[in-house]
Amino acid sequence: MERINRWRAHGGWQEVWRHDSTATGTPMEFSVFVPDGDGPKPVVWYLSGLTCNWSNVTEKGEFREACARHGFIFVAPDTSPRGEGVPDDPDTAYDFGLGAGFYVDATEEPFAQHYQMRSYIERELPALIAANFPADMARQAIMGHSMGGHGALTIGLRNPGAYRSVSAFAPIVAPTECPWGQKALGGYLGTDPAAWAEYDACRLIEAGARVPALKVDQGAADGFLEGQLMPQRLQDTCAAAGQPLELALHEGYDHSYYFISSFMAAHLDWHAKHLKP
Amino acid sequence: MERINRWRAHGGWQEVWRHDSTATGTPMEFSVFVPDGDGPKPVVWYLSGLTCNWSNVTEKGEFREACARHGFIFVAPDTSPRGEGVPDDPDTAYDFGLGAGFYVDATEEPFAQHYQMRSYIERELPALIAANFPADMARQAIMGHSMGGHGALTIGLRNPGAYRSVSAFAPIVAPTECPWGQKALGGYLGTDPAAWAEYDACRLIEAGARVPALKVDQGAADGFLEGQLMPQRLQDTCAAAGQPLELALHEGYDHSYYFISSFMAAHLDWHAKHLKP
Repeated sequence: MERINRWRAHGGWQEVWRHDSTATGTPMEFSVFVPDGDGPKPVVWYLSGLTCNWSNVTEKGEFREACARHGFIFVAPDTSPRGEGVPDDPDTAYDFGLGAGFYVDATEEPFAQHYQMRSYIERELPALIAANFPADMARQAIMGHSMGGHGALTIGLRNPGAYRSVSAFAPIVAPTECPWGQKALGGYLGTDPAAWAEYDACRLIEAGARVPALKVDQGAADGFLEGQLMPQRLQDTCAAAGQPLELALHEGYDHSYYFISSFMAAHLDWHAKHLKP
Repeated sequence: MERINRWRAHGGWQEVWRHDSTATGTPMEFSVFVPDGDGPKPVVWYLSGLTCNWSNVTEKGEFREACARHGFIFVAPDTSPRGEGVPDDPDTAYDFGLGAGFYVDATEEPFAQHYQMRSYIERELPALIAANFPADMARQAIMGHSMGGHGALTIGLRNPGAYRSVSAFAPIVAPTECPWGQKALGGYLGTDPAAWAEYDACRLIEAGARVPALKVDQGAADGFLEGQLMPQRLQDTCAAAGQPLELALHEGYDHSYYFISSFMAAHLDWHAKHLKP
């Protein structure tokens, strides 16, 4: 594992690392903010949305002030494998292939070889963080945006006990029921809908999965709200299942980092309540 | 004047405007954050550094939380005229020409026609802000980064009474004595050093110019510190002249927006003390 950049920021170090991933079979990059101070620190995972890599939230996310204040390590992985030999969408669309791994372990060719983002985020990268940073892996939270919100929700739901709190900005909550998700799950997993269920937050909740605490913020002026994101679907599912959910709709806010950065500190303050020792 | 984009952010609107500038003879773009709330609001000017336009600080500057809290309008102009017919550096270097207007009114050909950034920032854009936004022009502050720190200092010093407080991140404080400044002032103003003095903060202070309050932060790991920025030169000049200066050197911080964003809120909180009604 090689540190390829770092900057002093907000009383800590904002770093970028590259390593050869066993899960994806490619070099992978991630960013990690490590605040100053001794002792093991809680880890907050941030999964990015379509087209993004570590740089978007690292540059525009406005998370460092709150992470420094709470003593959080903040990890931002990439959204897909990349590089020579990694197949992309045949039409090079933004919503499948490179930058659009959807946090699944692909089973369909030609994607199965490298698109193993579920294993990468659930197992390989946590082990690297635990081994190389002053991380208290008993205190983890996970959050994400859009496709990364889908990732945070599904990974949180599938791994009870791993994350004390889960939050998302404008998440894809029911990918089996929206065009982005149907394209991605079909492409990576094939046409059998049975294989899709463990990658759909609402289906997971309906099947009995739970997270201890769940917070979602959604911009009311988000152009993807009705067609792709469907926060009402999550609200109805949680209400029916008894899964606690703090959902807020924000007038005027869209799908961009202007929205995310506006509510980032509130999310981290909320995670802090759940990450107390 | 035409609004070309806006985003809801931090309880206000982050907007981008385009207008035909009389000063530069080109279309110019600027960004402006306008927090919600009635009544005239103080205006904070942020002048960007080499290679930047409005987008760098707007995306990475982390200024909106503090501006919303204090009720500040935050204006981020471009750093040069742009477009067809605007001459660039003959070698298209990053430190002269496009993205590098140095906040001067050029007198040398072929730059004099469009490179009139002093007039643009001192007169034309303030009039537009006053006419089109809920701005209290009796309460203005000015700040900037690197070349934009030079701009903030010199514009503040040349316009007594206009700005209640002036601050900078890693400013060029003595452009007549450093390579960036010598190239720019020579190119825009010609070889007569007499013409350069009004664009050199240290020279202006030595000649008797003052600002009511001055704050400078500088990263100690900034690669441009010794060769271009020379904060000690400003400190010595202010001490000799009796110009109050709050200068801090920050171990480990570099010249990037990771540095700027780390201290942005502290600068805005400091300006707030001076911008009280």
